[in-house]
Amino acid sequence: MYRAPVDEIAHAIKHVAGLSNAIESGQAGELSEDLVDAILEEAGKFATDQIAPLLMVGDQHGSKLANDAVTTPPGWKELYQSWIAGGWNALSGPEEYGGQNLPSTLAMAATEMWNSGSMAFGLCPMLTMGAIEAFEAHASDELKAVYFEKLISGEWTGSMNLTEPQAGSDLAALKSRAEPQGDGTYRIFGQKIFITYGEHDMTDNIVHLVLARLPDAPAGTRGISLFAVPKFLVNDDGSLGERNDAFCSGLEHKLGVHASPTCTMIYGDGKFGDKPGAIGWLIGEENRGLNCMFTMMNNARLAVGVQGVAIAEAATQKAIAFANERKQGKASSWDGEGMAPIVFHPDIQRNLLTMKALTQAARAICYSCAHALDLAKIGSDEDKKFWSERASLLTPIAKAYSTDIGSEVASIGVQVHGGMGFIEETGAAIFMRDARIAQIYEGTNGIQAIDLVQRKLPLSEGQCVSAYFDELDGILEQLRTSNEPAFGNSMAVLTEAMEALKSATSWLNTKSKAGETQHVLAAATPYQTLFGLVAGGIYLAKSALAVPDAKDRAALCRFFAENHANGAAALKNRVEQGADSFEAAAASLVD
Amino acid sequence: MYRAPVDEIAHAIKHVAGLSNAIESGQAGELSEDLVDAILEEAGKFATDQIAPLLMVGDQHGSKLANDAVTTPPGWKELYQSWIAGGWNALSGPEEYGGQNLPSTLAMAATEMWNSGSMAFGLCPMLTMGAIEAFEAHASDELKAVYFEKLISGEWTGSMNLTEPQAGSDLAALKSRAEPQGDGTYRIFGQKIFITYGEHDMTDNIVHLVLARLPDAPAGTRGISLFAVPKFLVNDDGSLGERNDAFCSGLEHKLGVHASPTCTMIYGDGKFGDKPGAIGWLIGEENRGLNCMFTMMNNARLAVGVQGVAIAEAATQKAIAFANERKQGKASSWDGEGMAPIVFHPDIQRNLLTMKALTQAARAICYSCAHALDLAKIGSDEDKKFWSERASLLTPIAKAYSTDIGSEVASIGVQVHGGMGFIEETGAAIFMRDARIAQIYEGTNGIQAIDLVQRKLPLSEGQCVSAYFDELDGILEQLRTSNEPAFGNSMAVLTEAMEALKSATSWLNTKSKAGETQHVLAAATPYQTLFGLVAGGIYLAKSALAVPDAKDRAALCRFFAENHANGAAALKNRVEQGADSFEAAAASLVD
Repeated sequence: MYRAPVDEIAHAIKHVAGLSNAIESGQAGELSEDLVDAILEEAGKFATDQIAPLLMVGDQHGSKLANDAVTTPPGWKELYQSWIAGGWNALSGPEEYGGQNLPSTLAMAATEMWNSGSMAFGLCPMLTMGAIEAFEAHASDELKAVYFEKLISGEWTGSMNLTEPQAGSDLAALKSRAEPQGDGTYRIFGQKIFITYGEHDMTDNIVHLVLARLPDAPAGTRGISLFAVPKFLVNDDGSLGERNDAFCSGLEHKLGVHASPTCTMIYGDGKFGDKPGAIGWLIGEENRGLNCMFTMMNNARLAVGVQGVAIAEAATQKAIAFANERKQGKASSWDGEGMAPIVFHPDIQRNLLTMKALTQAARAICYSCAHALDLAKIGSDEDKKFWSERASLLTPIAKAYSTDIGSEVASIGVQVHGGMGFIEETGAAIFMRDARIAQIYEGTNGIQAIDLVQRKLPLSEGQCVSAYFDELDGILEQLRTSNEPAFGNSMAVLTEAMEALKSATSWLNTKSKAGETQHVLAAATPYQTLFGLVAGGIYLAKSALAVPDAKDRAALCRFFAENHANGAAALKNRVEQGADSFEAAAASLVD
Repeated sequence: MYRAPVDEIAHAIKHVAGLSNAIESGQAGELSEDLVDAILEEAGKFATDQIAPLLMVGDQHGSKLANDAVTTPPGWKELYQSWIAGGWNALSGPEEYGGQNLPSTLAMAATEMWNSGSMAFGLCPMLTMGAIEAFEAHASDELKAVYFEKLISGEWTGSMNLTEPQAGSDLAALKSRAEPQGDGTYRIFGQKIFITYGEHDMTDNIVHLVLARLPDAPAGTRGISLFAVPKFLVNDDGSLGERNDAFCSGLEHKLGVHASPTCTMIYGDGKFGDKPGAIGWLIGEENRGLNCMFTMMNNARLAVGVQGVAIAEAATQKAIAFANERKQGKASSWDGEGMAPIVFHPDIQRNLLTMKALTQAARAICYSCAHALDLAKIGSDEDKKFWSERASLLTPIAKAYSTDIGSEVASIGVQVHGGMGFIEETGAAIFMRDARIAQIYEGTNGIQAIDLVQRKLPLSEGQCVSAYFDELDGILEQLRTSNEPAFGNSMAVLTEAMEALKSATSWLNTKSKAGETQHVLAAATPYQTLFGLVAGGIYLAKSALAVPDAKDRAALCRFFAENHANGAAALKNRVEQGADSFEAAAASLVD
């Protein structure tokens, strides 16, 4: 069973993402390395001892809907209550409302552990986190006074209501509507689908954040507003009042994350309250709802990337443990009696090393993105802009690369288990099923790629991405001067991969400037994969260079370079040439 | 819903695999192209109209065990009866026992369609097919007289009993035992796991083929014998007699193929009959059971490869249909009103074209392998040896490449569906769940890779593989002289890919001869992937070159070349250099 890799995570956030430097240079306030270690240690214990044991229970029972109420699996409510009692929901909220104001880097590290324990559990606080960010950035003090403290403590959870049947990737098609009541409140009407933890029994109240259109709002995305719609209205004294006119009409039967209720939410059906319409309060300005959403989307996308890392880590641990136990066949490197543990078979080693290397590469990308978010909050305006853009640049990579490898690693984990991997009781398949959604939600990985090539590469006229490449080049320079033989051909391969990334980037810039949008869009996904591959590989080098005598880390970097990063040239070719092959071939796809 | 792609399959078997040439040159007996078309058409109708509609029923109900009896999903028994009534089980059996003796190519084409309809259904005849082959090659006439006709008609099904808890990939560890009774029969004792359709309600009897050890048999794989163990003993008049001492003690709860019962089988527990021991009859010689198994393993492995193609085809059809219906966002190539069908988005096009190209590449490999099996049955001994070795060479590629792309294509299919893909009712996730086992059973794809590099490359001192490369070079030569501009850079890319494959093959030969087994084993999987990639790409060229004006096919070949086959150089590097990076990195994996 999963054991939180506290030391590995600490290494990644301190030495790869750069938290140690930040602490040393005073950028991290009162945070000390000891405090970081202590928090990670405690979070790791909770994830290992309390969340992970409920993974299979959650998967097998799932959440159930009856009489408008969702019942989470046995032990789920107690787990959640114990988790908020530990103060874990409040890690990164503002102090004036009870939060601990700890850096994103640390919050994301904890997020990884919750989600390794159970992604279905980890989803609940992830949604609340989104609500917290929306409140922090955009809610009025009046609204904050009622909800904010309870969202930060986790006493109440949040839900995010964007998607409608006809409006998924394209929110412009959104139809839910909000009618102003003249008293500062609105009545919300509409149906939302795929609402994670839209209804559950773990807390007394749920604060739904709902996108809807005001009467006469402009069409498209510029006519969408954001509302807070509590499940139960809150009395002036803070006690819970009447049930609001919002309920869950159905749960989805899903491939994975069974314990996480995915709700169809009905607003304003007249089922509850004196007259139809769920009562809501505007968050931020009218018609600026999508901007409010974008505020939290960066964090949410990063958190989903972290879910990819989390699943990959849990799957890797399970596969390594199995490969050490399961014996089949002979292996020349095994000198024991009888059949060899399969970990001694080279092909199994390839699988396990791939799992390990991809996981660590993705983790490095995610925590580097989180650290950029932290640095974006301090220093000069110029510094803030620089790091904010850096975080924006890395967000699609963190989300897409990590969730892609999350599914890949989980699938390899099933393979390592052989026939047992296909049996649900083994538990390897859960990771594969759970991981699959992370490539889809919070913007499909295809949408991330479009965001990367169309919105992120042009940041500061391309200076954002070129500064990042300079940083990666700096690591390559360190690698060049390293005497560690365990790096093998890493330097040559990673340098070539970096050149491929630069070439592909130039190609995209040229095409973008020439207005050849179809080419840019066609090349987006292989470019995104290339970006993650190169950044991940170079971070593995950084991870080994950061501490003395890290032969194991250097060997893993070498494995990644010589078995994965050498795919960079092909990806570059797909970016620069692949798009030309689309037009003729794609015609056959249209009905 | 799935519609059998009869024309596409006909094109693949006739023009890519070479059945048309065989018919023309008289190698296919009385078979005509018209007969091929007629059979494919009828098989396609059955798969489309009768099997595919039960896919979701089968997945949702699954098979259930109660009172030692397995109940298949509603409609399953009727479907099977209707299927054998159509004569579909008898396609390729010998005529003297009621078979139609049609070529493997045609039987595999039909197999693809059954498995596209429902892989859980298609598995049942696949297992019977294995039993038929074992009977044909090794059973005595007495045994054939009792069972063979009913196995060929499908009135009775077959099951394959190899795996035991401690003996999966390594059958040397097998413990089931057989005691000779002195009357030509044996009593079988032991437990077998993962037995597909080991028990079910679709037929009156089941013939279990069971591997077991005779008393004092040599240890390891040379002490294993094969037995036929019927569920019900057969009276002299052919009627069913007593229940044999064999039963299903449990069903696995699996990730996919829910309707296919995966049984734990108990032999000789004393539950049925007068005294403990399931009565069985030896097939082939004593202690030569594994050889008997290998007879059918080639076909079974190819059939599993075809399952990969089948799932990929069904998933591709579903994704293309969805992408034509679902509307989101704007697309420059869409000139209709409102949101564009997502098939007009370049990133979706990349996904769909990848699905289509991988499916057709894998299909070409599988049918080329099937055609080699057919040619191995005719002509001179030299010819037979040549084609038999060709089939042996292509079998691991057909199995591993096709099942790898089966899972990949099914997963892309989920992605194309967005959030809907994660919802079970959509049906896209079934393909992903079902496809996953095909990479594992009938020898994991890692085992296939080892088979390829250690057993298949050395065939006829390497002349088998070099003759195959000559054939591929011949196709490249045709491509070189083609004037079809739709091929784009296919020729250059595929030629480079072919060089990479040759280089990797030489490297493996050198290492093998030098006895550097660890390197050979470490390189096996990327080599196998490279082989499939190159063969698949060149077959797509062949597919386009085979008929006049095949612009669509040439465009698909180009897409594959410029977006997939250009990964060949990286795979070659992984083969030739990747293995060096294993040793240091792998040490950290061992507990």
